[in-house]
Amino acid sequence: MKRRDFITTTTAITATTLLSGCNRKIDEYRSITTSKRVKTKIKLATSWPAKFPIMGEGVEYFADNVKAMSGGDIEIKIYSKNTLVPALGVFDATSAGQIDAFHSGPYYWKGKNSAFSLFSGYPFGQINSELSAWFMFGGGYELWRELYARYNLYPLLGGNTSVQMGGWFKKPIDSVEDLKGLKMRIPGLGGEVLAKMGVNPILLPAGEIGLALERGVLDATEWVGPALDIKMGFHKVAPYYYSGWHEPGSTLELTFNKRKWDKLPSEHKAIITIASQEMHSRMSFDFQAKNAEAISELEKYNIKIRKFSPNIMRVAKQKFDKVIEELSTQNRDFAKVYKSASTFLDKQKKWSDVGLKNYLDIRTILSQ
Amino acid sequence: MKRRDFITTTTAITATTLLSGCNRKIDEYRSITTSKRVKTKIKLATSWPAKFPIMGEGVEYFADNVKAMSGGDIEIKIYSKNTLVPALGVFDATSAGQIDAFHSGPYYWKGKNSAFSLFSGYPFGQINSELSAWFMFGGGYELWRELYARYNLYPLLGGNTSVQMGGWFKKPIDSVEDLKGLKMRIPGLGGEVLAKMGVNPILLPAGEIGLALERGVLDATEWVGPALDIKMGFHKVAPYYYSGWHEPGSTLELTFNKRKWDKLPSEHKAIITIASQEMHSRMSFDFQAKNAEAISELEKYNIKIRKFSPNIMRVAKQKFDKVIEELSTQNRDFAKVYKSASTFLDKQKKWSDVGLKNYLDIRTILSQ
Repeated sequence: MKRRDFITTTTAITATTLLSGCNRKIDEYRSITTSKRVKTKIKLATSWPAKFPIMGEGVEYFADNVKAMSGGDIEIKIYSKNTLVPALGVFDATSAGQIDAFHSGPYYWKGKNSAFSLFSGYPFGQINSELSAWFMFGGGYELWRELYARYNLYPLLGGNTSVQMGGWFKKPIDSVEDLKGLKMRIPGLGGEVLAKMGVNPILLPAGEIGLALERGVLDATEWVGPALDIKMGFHKVAPYYYSGWHEPGSTLELTFNKRKWDKLPSEHKAIITIASQEMHSRMSFDFQAKNAEAISELEKYNIKIRKFSPNIMRVAKQKFDKVIEELSTQNRDFAKVYKSASTFLDKQKKWSDVGLKNYLDIRTILSQ
Repeated sequence: MKRRDFITTTTAITATTLLSGCNRKIDEYRSITTSKRVKTKIKLATSWPAKFPIMGEGVEYFADNVKAMSGGDIEIKIYSKNTLVPALGVFDATSAGQIDAFHSGPYYWKGKNSAFSLFSGYPFGQINSELSAWFMFGGGYELWRELYARYNLYPLLGGNTSVQMGGWFKKPIDSVEDLKGLKMRIPGLGGEVLAKMGVNPILLPAGEIGLALERGVLDATEWVGPALDIKMGFHKVAPYYYSGWHEPGSTLELTFNKRKWDKLPSEHKAIITIASQEMHSRMSFDFQAKNAEAISELEKYNIKIRKFSPNIMRVAKQKFDKVIEELSTQNRDFAKVYKSASTFLDKQKKWSDVGLKNYLDIRTILSQ
């Protein structure tokens, strides 16, 4: 039987009983009535368009699961980008309680606190498995919740893009010199690193990037990875596709208004937490599956898949260290979060090298 | 309010009412009684000792979550290895309905059907993200459920060990020649490959491996990875620790008696499925965190972390192809599952090389 049916039945019988005149039991029936199962309604806005592959679809899958797990007691109404709140207005709207929750990415809120960008990961930092391990077993969740609480927010892990690509370029980038003066759409810490290498980072809404590339307003753009990039058509105008370094596994978030969250029944908290963490990984597997499809598809378009040279990466790392130094000096929160994440990463790197990287090296050797 | 309290309250009031003589409503109260929320009790046996790190702990975490999400309606009683069923008797006991479910690894059942070992992954095959993507988006789940249904079983993803290590050796293995005549504890397809290279694979219960190594009954053993290996003390007698190739990311399973599963209310199916898939990834993150800790710890013991030479790996791959050919000829199920998994992997490899491997290469370059 569905839980909802149970509630309906119980309520109906109580009403009948009250009317029946069998009043000796009224108080006890009232106790049934007030013990009615709690319904939770959640208004959730995303930063993605409706039916956006992987990320938008993932949130719908999550909401469906939550409904099924709660027998319909938890209803999540999803508002895609700009239908209720502007794409990048979801943080403030949730903080103020205009909506209950949002699905987006922490680095969008670096203007509030530069430390927030670190919860998305950072250049030369953690891959998905390492970053998720930090959140769950290395203190990451606690730090995130401590800082978001100041904005009346409570975050959950809500996805990981896996390693993102370095971007689409109209011309090959063979040296640090080739980057100078380049107009590139690249946000976040990656953009700050490239700015120190002479790139002119430009932020444009998604819908305008393609035309800007075509008209020379942009020389290059990064986006996400093959599965989402192919739909943008960048390969038609900027055929040099570089492997990634600046977003090795970006966290997506499912974040609640904290007052709303705190008032939820414990069962509903448990259902939402576990469903969100399940979405977190499932989304990364979806990226894995669809990126693999798309990279095969892209091969038909005569694109050039390239790697940045070791020297470009070394210079980028030096600039990155400088960016970290500056932000750590400016913001104690940034320093604290970066120290936690990078100390954890140092240990993880050893294991990832011995385990994962060595294994991938073997596969490469065998394919040669 | 807890759901359990609700049920108790309802039942108590119904009983009182029946005794009160207000009998006109008896039938309606009965309808409350029979419409009581469904309780699900699950007897689950594992192949691990009680409190076994990561894997045993992960199942307890899963059972706690399921209880919290269902407000106590689903109670999972966990029986660790040998407390109700022998460690490797869980498949048959669940199939026969003596217990409801088990937590173990599919390759233990290769004696039932050699194809089952492929659901754990295979030598030179998928890492966790690729294998999980195959289950969820590449047809793996469907194949697994089709084959397990013949045994009245219904499997869910229940964990992934991440890349396992190649094992502990008393002497360095510099060439294919060094493997000949070696007595090594290694199960599964990895063992079959090494057997074709002259190794004598020996199966021993966990508790006997250490002593066997010490006394020379064994020259080498593989186990899982740093976090679990360090507790076995193998490093004290076999200090050469080789990186892995034969278990690049082994799936663990949470498998139900199918008749039991089919009868569960849809809410309970949803709760168990999502909680199991959440455990699946969380366990891999736990391995990541604890393996990183353990590899640092192991450095204190003067162990030698080594890689097998490209030539050893090339010969192993040739032998592996031979094993696959033989098993595919012998067993149509094996051929079908291997074709599905390996076709999917071929596409994934391209993406993993461009995305993940390139990124890990950059980190290596920067650490030099």
